[in-house]
Amino acid sequence: MTTKEIADAFTALCKAGKFEEAGAEFWADDVVSLEPMTGDMAIARGRAAVEAKGAWWYANHEIHKVEVEGPFPHGDQFAVIFAMEVTPKGGQRMAMREIGLYTLKDGKIVEERFFYGG
Amino acid sequence: MTTKEIADAFTALCKAGKFEEAGAEFWADDVVSLEPMTGDMAIARGRAAVEAKGAWWYANHEIHKVEVEGPFPHGDQFAVIFAMEVTPKGGQRMAMREIGLYTLKDGKIVEERFFYGG
Repeated sequence: MTTKEIADAFTALCKAGKFEEAGAEFWADDVVSLEPMTGDMAIARGRAAVEAKGAWWYANHEIHKVEVEGPFPHGDQFAVIFAMEVTPKGGQRMAMREIGLYTLKDGKIVEERFFYGG
Repeated sequence: MTTKEIADAFTALCKAGKFEEAGAEFWADDVVSLEPMTGDMAIARGRAAVEAKGAWWYANHEIHKVEVEGPFPHGDQFAVIFAMEVTPKGGQRMAMREIGLYTLKDGKIVEERFFYGG
């Protein structure tokens, strides 16, 4: 599959709200997930850690709406824009806009790197 | 300056329509500019080549509108979303959405990499 084919398939799953399925299908076993922060959440290494990060996110945020735009491919990478409305547990409802930058190797996502606006 | 400070200053110039000034202030002398295509325009190496690419773009496109969103920082990188309406010389007016991913070193942009949706 080309970058565009993988990017289209991954993004289509995200647009259908199937984020975990998108990861299950396309994450490499040694995928690395990078957040723009310090501390324990900054980097998750390996599929089990990345899945645990996702599970933590879903357990600690009520997700009201996610809009997904893209993909935006370039070489072995593609970007996706996410617009979300979420309420963190015990917090206020908020709007977030985020870019996910995905790097492929051998048809799998080996790195996902998130950028936040604001 | 931090990544966020540089990203904010660069993006503020872009939001003011001052794209060439943004480059003049923040491009490193050895900046590399990467487009998701093959051929001569795929890579421009060095400030003179990147400036020439910009001059070519402005000479060959009528720009009706540019909306700039961001920045979205992460580590030594930041992303900016551009929404444009342009008419290529001899062509049809079209809407484009593009993500620019900028990599900093020593306070200057050493790489800009563009991602197109569609």
